[in-house]
Amino acid sequence: MLDQLIDALRCLPGVGQKSAQRMAYHLLERNREGGLRLSGALAEAIERIGHCELCRDFSEEKLCVTCASSSRERHLLCAVESPADRLVIEQATGYRGLYFVLQGRLSPLDGIGPRELGLDLLATRLAQDEIRELIIATNPTVEGEATAHYLAQLARQFQVQPSRLAHGVPLGGELEYVDRGTLAHAFGSRTDAGL
Amino acid sequence: MLDQLIDALRCLPGVGQKSAQRMAYHLLERNREGGLRLSGALAEAIERIGHCELCRDFSEEKLCVTCASSSRERHLLCAVESPADRLVIEQATGYRGLYFVLQGRLSPLDGIGPRELGLDLLATRLAQDEIRELIIATNPTVEGEATAHYLAQLARQFQVQPSRLAHGVPLGGELEYVDRGTLAHAFGSRTDAGL
Repeated sequence: MLDQLIDALRCLPGVGQKSAQRMAYHLLERNREGGLRLSGALAEAIERIGHCELCRDFSEEKLCVTCASSSRERHLLCAVESPADRLVIEQATGYRGLYFVLQGRLSPLDGIGPRELGLDLLATRLAQDEIRELIIATNPTVEGEATAHYLAQLARQFQVQPSRLAHGVPLGGELEYVDRGTLAHAFGSRTDAGL
Repeated sequence: MLDQLIDALRCLPGVGQKSAQRMAYHLLERNREGGLRLSGALAEAIERIGHCELCRDFSEEKLCVTCASSSRERHLLCAVESPADRLVIEQATGYRGLYFVLQGRLSPLDGIGPRELGLDLLATRLAQDEIRELIIATNPTVEGEATAHYLAQLARQFQVQPSRLAHGVPLGGELEYVDRGTLAHAFGSRTDAGL
């Protein structure tokens, strides 16, 4: 029973045998109430949370709050890899447009192609909706860049303007500690000082 | 719903807001099956796992496997702070005696006294059972040492021989990297070389 719990806890990302064991002991010894609440929350969330039909973000309803809102600008669409990315953009920027959550990135070796990222749905939206700009906010990794490239081509097919997040030196960072790739990119893409 | 799941995940030790969010997204997106299994395992474990009446370790039955076994030496009792400590001793040593799991250590400031550690149960066992030696394997921390001191006195009350794990330089370690307290202790407790 205890072994089964420890084994089940290992399905959590970043949790190995030792951590799972510690978690199981902690819940059983110090927080059975929290453990029961977690068990209930898990079962309920898994049963009731699905995907928004428009943006593929997690949602209990057919449409998520953002897609259902009448106050968002419907000609702007921002494509992100994950709900977490969507959340930080929503929190950090004043963006008032809509989102499209890929729930992953193109990764042929892992069997993740355009279909798995819902790009057929995205194509339909680009074709039918009044979208004028697709802001591509995938991660600056190799796979994220490949996905961005693919998305940009898709946008152009439907006469939608693709755009990317600016890359460069992070604000508040010190040049000395910025990685070489970023520094080279920032140097090459230098802009008018405007001072 | 999603917020409740993230909040519930934070009851796991070492899991903050960011990790909880990552776990929730991971389970919902990539491993709903594992999430359901975890939910079930948690509920079942919390309902069915109690404490062994003799040693206080986790057990589904009244007596745990070790206490119920007829092949263990019943005159040796090893007191440990946690089930995890019991497990490593069982795995690393050839110990064939019984255990007593304190499920904590003396910590008056946190309201953990002799009663919370089941020391009344331990006293009963020391008085009634045929125990000859109490091996005190608490952690070498301030609270663990205080607990060890208390346990040693308790053992002597019942004419049981208390013993401690040896402290010193770890095998395979380099003197240069051993902490000062350990080194001073090892130096002071030096033994005949026997070479």
